[in-house]
Amino acid sequence: MGFNSLNTPSRTIMTPGPVEVDPRVLRAMSTPILGQFDPAFTKLMNEVMEMIRQVFQTKNRWAFPIDGTSRAGNEALLASIIEPGDKVFVPIYGRFGHLLVEICERYGADVYSIQCPWGEVFDPDVVIAEMAKISPKVVAIVHGETSTGRMQPLEKIGKACREQDAILVVDAVASIGGVEVKTDDWFIDGLIGGTQKCLSVPAGMAPITFNERIEKLILERKKVEAGIATAEDEQYQRSRMAIASNYFDLAMLMDYWSPRRLNHHTEATSMVYGLYEGLRLVLEEGLKPRFIRHLLHEKALVTGIQAMGLKLYGDSEHKLPCVTCIEIPAGVDGESVRKMLLKEFSIEIASSFGPLQGKIWRIGTMGYSCRKENVLAVLGGLEAVLIRHEVQVNRGEALQAAMDIYAAEESAMTIL
Amino acid sequence: MGFNSLNTPSRTIMTPGPVEVDPRVLRAMSTPILGQFDPAFTKLMNEVMEMIRQVFQTKNRWAFPIDGTSRAGNEALLASIIEPGDKVFVPIYGRFGHLLVEICERYGADVYSIQCPWGEVFDPDVVIAEMAKISPKVVAIVHGETSTGRMQPLEKIGKACREQDAILVVDAVASIGGVEVKTDDWFIDGLIGGTQKCLSVPAGMAPITFNERIEKLILERKKVEAGIATAEDEQYQRSRMAIASNYFDLAMLMDYWSPRRLNHHTEATSMVYGLYEGLRLVLEEGLKPRFIRHLLHEKALVTGIQAMGLKLYGDSEHKLPCVTCIEIPAGVDGESVRKMLLKEFSIEIASSFGPLQGKIWRIGTMGYSCRKENVLAVLGGLEAVLIRHEVQVNRGEALQAAMDIYAAEESAMTIL
Repeated sequence: MGFNSLNTPSRTIMTPGPVEVDPRVLRAMSTPILGQFDPAFTKLMNEVMEMIRQVFQTKNRWAFPIDGTSRAGNEALLASIIEPGDKVFVPIYGRFGHLLVEICERYGADVYSIQCPWGEVFDPDVVIAEMAKISPKVVAIVHGETSTGRMQPLEKIGKACREQDAILVVDAVASIGGVEVKTDDWFIDGLIGGTQKCLSVPAGMAPITFNERIEKLILERKKVEAGIATAEDEQYQRSRMAIASNYFDLAMLMDYWSPRRLNHHTEATSMVYGLYEGLRLVLEEGLKPRFIRHLLHEKALVTGIQAMGLKLYGDSEHKLPCVTCIEIPAGVDGESVRKMLLKEFSIEIASSFGPLQGKIWRIGTMGYSCRKENVLAVLGGLEAVLIRHEVQVNRGEALQAAMDIYAAEESAMTIL
Repeated sequence: MGFNSLNTPSRTIMTPGPVEVDPRVLRAMSTPILGQFDPAFTKLMNEVMEMIRQVFQTKNRWAFPIDGTSRAGNEALLASIIEPGDKVFVPIYGRFGHLLVEICERYGADVYSIQCPWGEVFDPDVVIAEMAKISPKVVAIVHGETSTGRMQPLEKIGKACREQDAILVVDAVASIGGVEVKTDDWFIDGLIGGTQKCLSVPAGMAPITFNERIEKLILERKKVEAGIATAEDEQYQRSRMAIASNYFDLAMLMDYWSPRRLNHHTEATSMVYGLYEGLRLVLEEGLKPRFIRHLLHEKALVTGIQAMGLKLYGDSEHKLPCVTCIEIPAGVDGESVRKMLLKEFSIEIASSFGPLQGKIWRIGTMGYSCRKENVLAVLGGLEAVLIRHEVQVNRGEALQAAMDIYAAEESAMTIL
């Protein structure tokens, strides 16, 4: 059986990840590789660390990617700080809150969780009051919940965690690079970002950062016997201790991502290239202008969806700007619509998980996918496909409404 | 602080990994991405599975990459089958045997190990006799040990494992795609390959395969309560059970890499593209011709090194063909030689770990790096740098000897 050279269709990807990758990032990924200890490569690793700090708005020393997909970042942070029996508090408002619970349980935590209805977020005071009752060592929470398209305000919770001496770990996989994420100002101790969403780098890496509070926890846990002969002996000693995973052991990863450069894994060169270029493009655009761009395209999309006569899902006050959830009209087969959109228009939108499966569609406006032509394409395509599915829509209104938003924006920019 | 667009030097990479990536693989990696559930992408995932089977010489149903570097593959296989207290037997003949021990210990195994001197391998009968005393549930061993450049014969050990009802897990990270690895014929139950060595794909994925014996172990361990409502509930139930890691849980990864396509992580699209193209090029070249190519360049390199007057390290009978270890002459600073080779000739060779640090250099002839011009470049460069370090060498002999090997080969091929 023979295999042909790679031959993939061209898609307009409007899911909440993975999203289209900037061609400049793809080109960077096709650069010939370097050895992992080549000074030219370790310099690049340092630059990636600095760019993560800037995008994550932190002064933390530790900021580097885990070589795995986003949940590998969650697991690395949680596995490295949780000891069996530790109290962890997880407020759940969607699918990825459940994932945090699951990871913590696997590593032996005593997990306390509260839930609010999907489509909503928590009143921070409710979280803080619950926390006071539990006195957890760690609070783990999602910032942007892709499954429901909501965003949890974190600053007040972060402050309370610091006051109550709890470690705050935040999954910002879906929000980083698309909306404001202020690691330091919000008192976040450990934060995980995603590449394949608003950073528009392919999946396969999880940039994380953590502060000295977490560093202290990890190093205390892995205290090394005195009189160790060499750095390698020391690493080996520590390795035999508490953390269940070798791959996700942040103590070892700190030794690798610091001037010590102690060998752990072989760094994923081409993914580092992609992340380097993706972060560079974020900083070149500027964080504020990038967030404003995400808001503009969200507005055009939302206005178009509503003009079509469709209903948005969820609490509008806490909508995640880069994910728009739409209620599937009664009697419509949501999967049939998605399939036709892919087959006829080569446009991909997403369904959702668990209780929301079959109830909503999710459209992402993230990173490089967050462009005018993409928003207009998905509105036009969706309307045509809905008409084929005999759904009553306000024909032709969606694109007009969205174009009006863009025209208003452009004329405002002309005045400036 | 501004960052420039990626600007990397051109290198001749002659380490035992990561090695140069075929330009065709790099081009494949710059292909625009697809959504993870796009039918065009899931088709590609199936093709990658089939190509892994062919390259790994197995009929196993389960053959897919773990989204992490090579040791992620080791950890996924071991974490998914080892329960706390399980007896695991690890014969150690270099650095990566110690890694297997470490991973098994972290997951709670009761590890028994034996060691032979670095630079040698085990007499299979010694391993088998020891195994009979221990009655381990799992035997874990390295096939090609990059740290020492040795290769352990496995067939006899594999047969004994089957007879004694032990599960055999093999780390073939350094050998797969460069030398014969017969998963099924050698009775290997689980096997981990590396991308960044003889497959010449960047680091960041670990293709693995495992048979029904391992599948049975995993599924028995994660037995699901009866009366589960949906596939997602079932997955969630199972997730709460025994395996410590979510990311490395092979039961979940089987659900993701099978027609069920239950969401786990977001597959690393561009790495899948790279792996697809890398495996395709291996099959296009053919396994046998590829192994013969690796032997030819090894022969040219070894002949050249010896002609120069340098000494090879280790038991020659069990040399790993794609890694050549050279004793650093007495009084020579090995790191200074490596640095000058990189600085003046832009050629990278490797040092080694632990007891061999400062004692040997390691030169890889792997995958795309395993080419005539690269072998000649490293011989020529090394000789010049050694002369600068005032080492007595037979001037000019290395390149003549290597060119003679190539000329003989070419004339033999002309006759054919």
